[in-house]
Amino acid sequence: MFRVTLFGESHGPGVAAVIDGCPAGLRLDPAEIHKELAKRMPPDATVTSARREQDEVQILSGVFDGYTTGAPLAMFVPNRDIRSEDYDKLKSAARPGHADYPTRIKYGGFNDLRGGGRASGRLTAPIVMAGAVAKKLLGSIGVSVFAHTVQIHRIRLEKQLTHEAIIRGTYTNTVRCADSETAEKMRAAILKARNEGDSVGGIVECIAEGLPPGIGEPIFDSLDADLAKMAFSIPAVKGFEVGLGFQASSVLGSVNNDPYTVKDGKVVTLTNNAGGILGGLTNGMPIVVRVAFKPPSSIPKQQNTVNLKEMRDTKVEVTGRHDPCIVPKAVPVVEAAVAIVLADHCLRSGTIPRVLGKKD
Amino acid sequence: MFRVTLFGESHGPGVAAVIDGCPAGLRLDPAEIHKELAKRMPPDATVTSARREQDEVQILSGVFDGYTTGAPLAMFVPNRDIRSEDYDKLKSAARPGHADYPTRIKYGGFNDLRGGGRASGRLTAPIVMAGAVAKKLLGSIGVSVFAHTVQIHRIRLEKQLTHEAIIRGTYTNTVRCADSETAEKMRAAILKARNEGDSVGGIVECIAEGLPPGIGEPIFDSLDADLAKMAFSIPAVKGFEVGLGFQASSVLGSVNNDPYTVKDGKVVTLTNNAGGILGGLTNGMPIVVRVAFKPPSSIPKQQNTVNLKEMRDTKVEVTGRHDPCIVPKAVPVVEAAVAIVLADHCLRSGTIPRVLGKKD
Amino acid sequence: MFRVTLFGESHGPGVAAVIDGCPAGLRLDPAEIHKELAKRMPPDATVTSARREQDEVQILSGVFDGYTTGAPLAMFVPNRDIRSEDYDKLKSAARPGHADYPTRIKYGGFNDLRGGGRASGRLTAPIVMAGAVAKKLLGSIGVSVFAHTVQIHRIRLEKQLTHEAIIRGTYTNTVRCADSETAEKMRAAILKARNEGDSVGGIVECIAEGLPPGIGEPIFDSLDADLAKMAFSIPAVKGFEVGLGFQASSVLGSVNNDPYTVKDGKVVTLTNNAGGILGGLTNGMPIVVRVAFKPPSSIPKQQNTVNLKEMRDTKVEVTGRHDPCIVPKAVPVVEAAVAIVLADHCLRSGTIPRVLGKKD
Amino acid sequence: MFRVTLFGESHGPGVAAVIDGCPAGLRLDPAEIHKELAKRMPPDATVTSARREQDEVQILSGVFDGYTTGAPLAMFVPNRDIRSEDYDKLKSAARPGHADYPTRIKYGGFNDLRGGGRASGRLTAPIVMAGAVAKKLLGSIGVSVFAHTVQIHRIRLEKQLTHEAIIRGTYTNTVRCADSETAEKMRAAILKARNEGDSVGGIVECIAEGLPPGIGEPIFDSLDADLAKMAFSIPAVKGFEVGLGFQASSVLGSVNNDPYTVKDGKVVTLTNNAGGILGGLTNGMPIVVRVAFKPPSSIPKQQNTVNLKEMRDTKVEVTGRHDPCIVPKAVPVVEAAVAIVLADHCLRSGTIPRVLGKKD
Repeated sequence: MFRVTLFGESHGPGVAAVIDGCPAGLRLDPAEIHKELAKRMPPDATVTSARREQDEVQILSGVFDGYTTGAPLAMFVPNRDIRSEDYDKLKSAARPGHADYPTRIKYGGFNDLRGGGRASGRLTAPIVMAGAVAKKLLGSIGVSVFAHTVQIHRIRLEKQLTHEAIIRGTYTNTVRCADSETAEKMRAAILKARNEGDSVGGIVECIAEGLPPGIGEPIFDSLDADLAKMAFSIPAVKGFEVGLGFQASSVLGSVNNDPYTVKDGKVVTLTNNAGGILGGLTNGMPIVVRVAFKPPSSIPKQQNTVNLKEMRDTKVEVTGRHDPCIVPKAVPVVEAAVAIVLADHCLRSGTIPRVLGKKD
Repeated sequence: MFRVTLFGESHGPGVAAVIDGCPAGLRLDPAEIHKELAKRMPPDATVTSARREQDEVQILSGVFDGYTTGAPLAMFVPNRDIRSEDYDKLKSAARPGHADYPTRIKYGGFNDLRGGGRASGRLTAPIVMAGAVAKKLLGSIGVSVFAHTVQIHRIRLEKQLTHEAIIRGTYTNTVRCADSETAEKMRAAILKARNEGDSVGGIVECIAEGLPPGIGEPIFDSLDADLAKMAFSIPAVKGFEVGLGFQASSVLGSVNNDPYTVKDGKVVTLTNNAGGILGGLTNGMPIVVRVAFKPPSSIPKQQNTVNLKEMRDTKVEVTGRHDPCIVPKAVPVVEAAVAIVLADHCLRSGTIPRVLGKKD
Repeated sequence: MFRVTLFGESHGPGVAAVIDGCPAGLRLDPAEIHKELAKRMPPDATVTSARREQDEVQILSGVFDGYTTGAPLAMFVPNRDIRSEDYDKLKSAARPGHADYPTRIKYGGFNDLRGGGRASGRLTAPIVMAGAVAKKLLGSIGVSVFAHTVQIHRIRLEKQLTHEAIIRGTYTNTVRCADSETAEKMRAAILKARNEGDSVGGIVECIAEGLPPGIGEPIFDSLDADLAKMAFSIPAVKGFEVGLGFQASSVLGSVNNDPYTVKDGKVVTLTNNAGGILGGLTNGMPIVVRVAFKPPSSIPKQQNTVNLKEMRDTKVEVTGRHDPCIVPKAVPVVEAAVAIVLADHCLRSGTIPRVLGKKD
Repeated sequence: MFRVTLFGESHGPGVAAVIDGCPAGLRLDPAEIHKELAKRMPPDATVTSARREQDEVQILSGVFDGYTTGAPLAMFVPNRDIRSEDYDKLKSAARPGHADYPTRIKYGGFNDLRGGGRASGRLTAPIVMAGAVAKKLLGSIGVSVFAHTVQIHRIRLEKQLTHEAIIRGTYTNTVRCADSETAEKMRAAILKARNEGDSVGGIVECIAEGLPPGIGEPIFDSLDADLAKMAFSIPAVKGFEVGLGFQASSVLGSVNNDPYTVKDGKVVTLTNNAGGILGGLTNGMPIVVRVAFKPPSSIPKQQNTVNLKEMRDTKVEVTGRHDPCIVPKAVPVVEAAVAIVLADHCLRSGTIPRVLGKKD
């Protein structure tokens, strides 16, 4: 119902999201989308790519008099600060861990290889734009979605933070971890990798609060299946879990099962190992998911690879502006991805109506 | 292209899979489907539910003269050995960890609650049937798919097994782990949980060999996204990862990147941390994914819960025939799920043709 | 939202419809489906095929305690009274006007050619079954759908009948035309063609009353586009029009435009040339569509054709049991097809809710 | 496989088409798209709207080095020469025959009503852009698609023209009818209506040559069903037919059936009453379809209508720049619509490959 189409490439005219199925009557201010996009730019440039994306959203359709019209909502961000020459030498050598080799095979070499083309992290900008709209829709029914970094390389967030602390603290530092002490260690881990010409990965957790029970579908369109699919649509994701996730496979059923109780006249669970989802449906508890990111593949360190034109072994050093860790930038992307799926399911179930109010 | 629709409930007339988009000309013998279905029934009944599903597949459409016709392929398995009375007492008490509470909310109580209805593991039988067809299609282009148990509760398969050893050893024991020593410990863990009225979970790994590079799509329809979605369509799944998966988030880029080399005139990688997928596309190396299952929620142990009719706290003991661990049964299901997604992508890319050969 | 999948072949085990997206809580009695299926069997066997389909519906899933559960609703009808030998001689000679030649090409000859296989009119039985469910859903919001024959060969219904007269009179005679005088002439036209070893076509009109304004979508998913697509999914359909249809192309805009007026506090139009649809959306007036059927291609008369195996010209006489006119049988099929599309759009817009009521 | 998404409104920043699934390796020059767009602007402004759309296509993604990349292909045309004030007075009075009343109901009044918003004929520009790409793809396998006007108001093209004559003559005059004599009468009919403050409709025929047999799908995704759906996605369409169409309902089966014969080693039919489609599949003969357009609803003549705010009867005169007949502009739109559907089905069947050639 809330169908998002992306287009654009890293070094083309720009990137865009088109949302088909956005309800009419949603107040939408480009400034709100800018605010979400800005979250992709951590304040401290040393931990992320030197490419500064100062994105300016153009709403090309679907908004009239400040409200969504119910027609497809198209949001475009022109590309700026492009330096294509950095990639020229990579045409023949496959970059280890990068999508360039299978992409070349798939598209017969016609793919736009500048800046990673369509596989570029640049494509996460339109996910964030679509997510900004989804978050507003969810906000209209009292649902909030927020993500934070829980691991960078080997540094884990060990403290149990309240939802309030996460919401307040995440975007105050450059690694998007709400605990400042852990955040400092994470930042150090990124800088260390960077100085060694290497890169690191990490884990982002995302929480959604306020969903009523019974949202979702069983089996093939289950809420967790759609969340998993959307998570793996984000570049560099290698793992996804809900609630206890992989850890659920090593605890007893009597421990993993969340006991029900009645609280303030509502059915709640005393623990939330299920991460808010049972049988593909919300159970009324907060949705909790975690997304694992691999370290970025583009590193200055010399690596063994193959010259694809001459089919012989060679070496490659990937220079240019690359992120030593994309996790900080990925936090708002995970937030957006989760929000898109939740908005879609809330629209399917009728929890969010097709028209928000009525215009005079 | 290879669209699978399931229907049926645990205690209704039967369960079925309808495949739309199966190529014409595939030789299909019901015995082959029976063979796959039989994998769901571990030889040792003590580790699984006492319900013995001796499934007899009826092909209702799509096969003529022993070959698929290109029309929708419908396969039906009647339900037998049903004892519905076991579930009668569960109508008012929500079972912790079970989908019954959110399902009741979603469907206004009209859902078929007998035997878990549509959320039942019984629905994995048609996944296996559809997977049997997908595996045959993949076999026609030299692709093989095989899964095995790598963890039950806290018992992990620590040995590194060859693909041959996995293929040969998996279905020789009741827990579907190819290493007999580990398998014995896993079996003991299940029996221990069972004797305590409890349950355990585990992890299934699935490998697919023989795919050419460049199969898949970028971003929203990426191969890993579709695999993740399909994995989460299997009941009780809480985690999914590709290649190194979650572990990729704690190694350096220089370690995680798989170096390319030329071997026998083909591009291969020296390691396979990517699990065969880069940027949503196959890179020509084996696909490796892992799926985490929670312990079954239905346990004889007494649990705290809520009486939904009277909205008050109560206790529940889930009796009846339930599996203390569904991982052994899940192994062929994961195999099937992965095969379905791979067949779909091979059809999309034209790697598997729309018609296999020509009839006289 | 109301997705119908058909499977089955003319001479296989049976034919079926699976509805995904049917709301929970719809009271459903197999007798109601039988009643609709019976409409496909005109009382006078001389105008239709000698094959008597006494269909017995088996509900395989999706109904519990007499109500739909919200799970996929599968309805199956076993095939009976099959005489496959009639078709044996047709294997090599393409039948003019029949789908057998392109079907053989598309499926490499693997298609089930017995009884027309999947292109058989037999596949309209599951459309009628799905339509029976759709009509019940529409009935729950006060919408009624009814079709009637308005032309057979050159005999047109010239009288302007009231909706009441159509509803009352259509199924009282064998050609499904509510005006008995015209019906008699139509019957004569069919018998004349039959006696000459030939066949005739005709036009079915379908009306839907009671839809509120604003149902549908603009452009690609417009209500008329979906109705057109569904109409052309019925075998032998060659034309589709809405309201004035083709005639609208030869009247002036000032004549074609339906003037609005206020009646009983509601906006209505004084004429209904639009057939109830403007810009892909309902305008609150009755939906009126017409569907043109060609004469059945299978005729006993000798025809010129090609021997496909030897690639030379030959003659063919199509014997066996064939309808000299399928229009009478098609009337309930058109009704069903229109109802399916309307139910789908009413579910999309939320006009029909996802759950009808609540179970104790 | 060839999915077209449109966005934009008549008076917004512009209109666009995004094609998902376009093969890589198609040589694409914006000039070719301009050429198709220019066909929407008949040379003689008196028969069409005074709004001159001098469209300049911007390719926003999916093309690199002059070839399609396989990534989504986004084409945008900015809107120019907009005069929104013309529509201000129409806010309260529903325009007879126009989509404004049901649109207002559907979207709670939030829809962009300027210039008809999304229901505007302006949205046919992106259909033509997508069609230009589809026509190039079809051209790569030797398929040509061409439409022409066969009726304006009561003036019909009675002469039987060769395909060559149609291709050569259609775009040489302002009404897009290849017979200059008939064209002149059609032009006069439009001018007469225009001078009377009225409007006229007409019929466009479209032919596709060169398709091999067996393209399409049976039943729900049949080629004719998809063509019908696409035709009704064009504004103002009220009828669609294939081959003999509605006329097929009044001829005998022995006349309607197209006899097969062998010609130059290929199976052909001696007549083409089927319009190239049997059972939803191509039969190797030219596709022939006809699309009926109603007269434009916006006319200067005074009409009876309703003031929607005050719910009382009133009068309306629709001034501003409106077409007295949209058929001439619709000819390239029908061509594009047909080409889009054919390209999609040729991609599905593998007749057009996913990659056209290989880049150095």
